[in-house]
Amino acid sequence: MIYQLYYWPTIQGRGEFVRLALEQSGAAYVDVARRSGRGFGVAALMRLLESRNVERPPFAPPFLQAGRRIIGQTANILLFLGPRHALAPRDEGGRLWTHQLQLTMADFLVEIHDTHHPVAAGLYYEDQKKEARRRAADFLENRAPKYLGYFERVLTRNARGERYLVATKPTYADLSMFQIVSGLKYAFPLAMARAGRRYRRLFALHDRIRELPRIAAYLASERRIPFNQEGIFRHYPELDAS
Amino acid sequence: MIYQLYYWPTIQGRGEFVRLALEQSGAAYVDVARRSGRGFGVAALMRLLESRNVERPPFAPPFLQAGRRIIGQTANILLFLGPRHALAPRDEGGRLWTHQLQLTMADFLVEIHDTHHPVAAGLYYEDQKKEARRRAADFLENRAPKYLGYFERVLTRNARGERYLVATKPTYADLSMFQIVSGLKYAFPLAMARAGRRYRRLFALHDRIRELPRIAAYLASERRIPFNQEGIFRHYPELDAS
Repeated sequence: MIYQLYYWPTIQGRGEFVRLALEQSGAAYVDVARRSGRGFGVAALMRLLESRNVERPPFAPPFLQAGRRIIGQTANILLFLGPRHALAPRDEGGRLWTHQLQLTMADFLVEIHDTHHPVAAGLYYEDQKKEARRRAADFLENRAPKYLGYFERVLTRNARGERYLVATKPTYADLSMFQIVSGLKYAFPLAMARAGRRYRRLFALHDRIRELPRIAAYLASERRIPFNQEGIFRHYPELDAS
Repeated sequence: MIYQLYYWPTIQGRGEFVRLALEQSGAAYVDVARRSGRGFGVAALMRLLESRNVERPPFAPPFLQAGRRIIGQTANILLFLGPRHALAPRDEGGRLWTHQLQLTMADFLVEIHDTHHPVAAGLYYEDQKKEARRRAADFLENRAPKYLGYFERVLTRNARGERYLVATKPTYADLSMFQIVSGLKYAFPLAMARAGRRYRRLFALHDRIRELPRIAAYLASERRIPFNQEGIFRHYPELDAS
């Protein structure tokens, strides 16, 4: 089966967590909106999103078509892919734990996004710059350390060793953690340079994932969209630690 | 087995979604932080949250202890409880769909919360009142209709009838939908009074859940904490539609 991933074609965004899992699994997939031609592109994404014939419609991208099934919500897509592609433990406890970590990262991601859009996602950054400064300052001082410290602790406590969050090999949660650390380094280079010592295991995990052969090949390919100022992670120097 | 729910004792918050599922399932559970005495209260919650001996620590309340297992993240707890208490379909597709709806509600909930705390959850409302007005206006004009319209559509398209979101009987997603509609009615009474006609099926679902015998008994009991100005749903008249 060839999976069809539907996500915005010009940003990493939430779709990137799914792309990383698909790449690491070696599964065949089509990134529908990034292709052109009949049945592809953003038009195909919008058509499916707005179709009246989908009994179980997704709320927003990303969503994944797997045969006749359409699955929405990033964490839910990973919950589906995990056991099928050895990206989650087989036992129920391990699967729930992996998912729990993913959901905590989803919460973190909302807070990361809101550093540049605290008032409304629909307004321009320029129209909420002052509020963004306040929110980003609180984020760097209070929220980011709370989350990063938590994930560092999870690594410390993994009974199977501190190389990965859950097991002795990477799960989708480790891939997602890589993405979040990468994004934070892009968005807040000064603050993250300082944080490196405090979150040694987390940064080592980031490097370890980056060097997995399939991930390394993906990151070097044109399939990886570079970070940019339209995504969740944005680099505004005025929001970084001074 | 008696479940132990750990959540803040004075608010409905995210714990309420778990409470509703436990109540509807008829499962035996202890709301640990709401009891007093040795091994109970907020102290017991904090002790578990900060313990160095938990291999798979939760990031924040709510978390549920089920035997030796500790499960965090509201949607994850419901994913665990659903199939055990007939609050989710048995087939994988149905379970994923129920979870997908729950995760979309979790996204909605963050946006609801941020209407009164757009700058920082750690600051007082009074210190972000101006920003809250802007955010709440955007929420009522753009975001709430997008979410409510979506869930109304889900009801319309349920091949098993429009009484419930997923099946012919309530799942945990229906219980959560009830909670969200209840909360919105509390927080934004004017805006919601107007919205009633546009989201007829959704409001009917709310009333239907409220009248389920176990839910009705729960809502009339002292176990149900009233809505208040410390929770996710808060009533600030200046944020409601004028």
